[in-house]
Amino acid sequence: MIEPRVLKGFRDFLPTQEMDRRAAMEKLERAFQAFGFVPIDTPVLEYAEILLGKGGGETDKQLYRFEDNGGRDVAMRFDLTVPFARYMAEHLPELYLPFRRYHMAKVYRGENTQRGRYREFAQCDFDIVGADTVSCDAEILEIIAASFDALGAPEIRIHVAHRGIFNRFLDRLGVREQSEEVLRTVDKLHKVGREKTRQSLAELASADAADRILRYIEGADSWEATLDLVSEMAGGDDDDARRMAEIYEIAKSVGIAERVRFDPSITRGLDYYTGVVFETFLVQLPDIGSVCSGGRYNDLASLYTKQVIPGVGASIGLDRLMAALVDLGATVSANSATEVLVMRLDDALAPHYHAIAARLRSAGFAVEVYPQEKKLGAQFSYAEKKAIPWGVICGEDEVSEGTVQLKNLVTREASDGLTIESVVDRLRPR
Amino acid sequence: MIEPRVLKGFRDFLPTQEMDRRAAMEKLERAFQAFGFVPIDTPVLEYAEILLGKGGGETDKQLYRFEDNGGRDVAMRFDLTVPFARYMAEHLPELYLPFRRYHMAKVYRGENTQRGRYREFAQCDFDIVGADTVSCDAEILEIIAASFDALGAPEIRIHVAHRGIFNRFLDRLGVREQSEEVLRTVDKLHKVGREKTRQSLAELASADAADRILRYIEGADSWEATLDLVSEMAGGDDDDARRMAEIYEIAKSVGIAERVRFDPSITRGLDYYTGVVFETFLVQLPDIGSVCSGGRYNDLASLYTKQVIPGVGASIGLDRLMAALVDLGATVSANSATEVLVMRLDDALAPHYHAIAARLRSAGFAVEVYPQEKKLGAQFSYAEKKAIPWGVICGEDEVSEGTVQLKNLVTREASDGLTIESVVDRLRPR
Repeated sequence: MIEPRVLKGFRDFLPTQEMDRRAAMEKLERAFQAFGFVPIDTPVLEYAEILLGKGGGETDKQLYRFEDNGGRDVAMRFDLTVPFARYMAEHLPELYLPFRRYHMAKVYRGENTQRGRYREFAQCDFDIVGADTVSCDAEILEIIAASFDALGAPEIRIHVAHRGIFNRFLDRLGVREQSEEVLRTVDKLHKVGREKTRQSLAELASADAADRILRYIEGADSWEATLDLVSEMAGGDDDDARRMAEIYEIAKSVGIAERVRFDPSITRGLDYYTGVVFETFLVQLPDIGSVCSGGRYNDLASLYTKQVIPGVGASIGLDRLMAALVDLGATVSANSATEVLVMRLDDALAPHYHAIAARLRSAGFAVEVYPQEKKLGAQFSYAEKKAIPWGVICGEDEVSEGTVQLKNLVTREASDGLTIESVVDRLRPR
Repeated sequence: MIEPRVLKGFRDFLPTQEMDRRAAMEKLERAFQAFGFVPIDTPVLEYAEILLGKGGGETDKQLYRFEDNGGRDVAMRFDLTVPFARYMAEHLPELYLPFRRYHMAKVYRGENTQRGRYREFAQCDFDIVGADTVSCDAEILEIIAASFDALGAPEIRIHVAHRGIFNRFLDRLGVREQSEEVLRTVDKLHKVGREKTRQSLAELASADAADRILRYIEGADSWEATLDLVSEMAGGDDDDARRMAEIYEIAKSVGIAERVRFDPSITRGLDYYTGVVFETFLVQLPDIGSVCSGGRYNDLASLYTKQVIPGVGASIGLDRLMAALVDLGATVSANSATEVLVMRLDDALAPHYHAIAARLRSAGFAVEVYPQEKKLGAQFSYAEKKAIPWGVICGEDEVSEGTVQLKNLVTREASDGLTIESVVDRLRPR
């Protein structure tokens, strides 16, 4: 006998979890579609050279990479960004710009599982590529707000900053050489605290530079005041600063100004980003960190094509978000969608039971026939496990009368002598 | 520069294809849920020993199998049946029986791609496990009918046979030893023709046996007459024959009798099946072969647990089915879900355009803002590529009047001076 088990870092989804996951993904899809986004999909397996790209990152070591039966060097996708870049380079002639796409799929990383991380996990990416305008930047923020509304978790704060302004500030400070380490240090501010951050920055640059960087990233009270502060520290107004002002104008005009914050401490470590960057926090669960992050990049697919494709996009970590929604009580966690169980008193009446179920289904209900003659207690217990609210019971007498008994499986109240039509009428105004 | 390409046998999904796929999967999910089926998911990657099971089959050579970074012998799932067996063995204490589940996911086989086969393809499996009754057998046939109704391809024939009756017949004929080859030969009847099949069978057994087998698999005109013929040839009535009679009773009672045929030539090669077996054909496209096949097995998870779990289930090859739906004109093939494009005359009005879009979205429409100032011709051409039916146009004058122009992007007819409310009213009665 083979021991039934999954690999470390991999998971089965029990029906309740999978229903929650699918319900959340459907809500997100509706939100994306309301903004004109279209879905795509790409293979799980790709040429390793495609996925490695420039290579050298942390991901290389985590890659599930192997030689296939045809001797090809292949690997499983570790994110949805690299396949999207390859996809755009390959299919641009068949597509159109600006291109708004979403992609929900599982990705694979042979990560250390100690920290509760999974090696197979779902991501949800949405991007607008082919245009570098304020409309695109603002729209991504709007969609984040609409997505969390749709998920029933509307209390969010989207923390926004601009890498262009920050880079100009670092240039002016004369620490552009150390900018990567500065970014990484600033990124850890909330983890290690102000004093330690100041010390690290002072070592990287100077005590004075450290103070200025801290002043910069601490911002001010309002979007406008923060924008004034950071653009002054960066050397005055420019296109990037105007972009940030315009983003806020749009946020106000579409009613999400309360949910966005100009937070100059947001840097998003990656080199990749060149414009607006953002992270999203659930107000009631700030400690879980950002549940949706992203930003603007000035060239998506430069590894695979000469065509310059600027874009802006965000990524939701669906697993962390699902856990958060459970904590917030924002998931329904149904055990099934079944509304009515047609119970079985007599195997000889099977055709009749199936006919009742078919009629209820054609009236729009989700219905099961209990498939074998068993004690009613066992059938009730099954209904309880699947959280089925209604039972329909009938024996030979009812069949000859053309009626059934309708039983509320929660209260155990029963109504006798009902026709199927009156069962439908009773259940319809749910 | 790295050449952007996918592996042989793997595919990207363009938005139109992916929307069709998702729409079809949603319709199938609704159909399954109406019968009380719940979704599950399992990892793409599993221990190779789990997936290989008894091993020795064709699948072994096709397996994507490798050693992971932790030295484990792992492989990508090649179907959804083996993972389901492992899943039931592992999670039985957390579940309940009878368990009705569906599973839609991609599977991986390093197959010869010459025949238009893919190495990554989607399957959709649905099974009822934990009960061996006529209700379960009949319900799977009902769900097949309901699924194809939901997909807009109601003209189907489900060809049903019973492996138990066939085995009894072969025993009586004295060719039980050769039964596997007989099954395989019979399976090819429609491909190689009657005469060649007779010859092959005569070589396997005897000329007389070949004639009898052909008579058996050719059946008779009606379900009842076929049942009489095959049960007589198998030595008389028994439980299996009664099961087939009862299945037909239920099919009649739920209104699908016209869509089922007793077809004793259906054998389903696999050892695995022990009871009812079936294949489903699209009446308008018989040549593409079965689009949904399956049957009853008496022990799902015997490799992983001592608990005996009988079941019945079917599998839809989603890729072949999607191609068929396109041929039948049963897919919508929308280029996007977007209903309204808010066009852009002036970048300075961006906040206003976003506000219009937000108001239309809150009225339930899928809306895009064209994200940059470009000639209207370019914007029309974008709308055409995404098949967006309506445009909303406004410049400074309209903003000061609080109105917009609504443009039918197909006929190019325009209505001026409309408030957003009247736009909503005009678009609503679609």
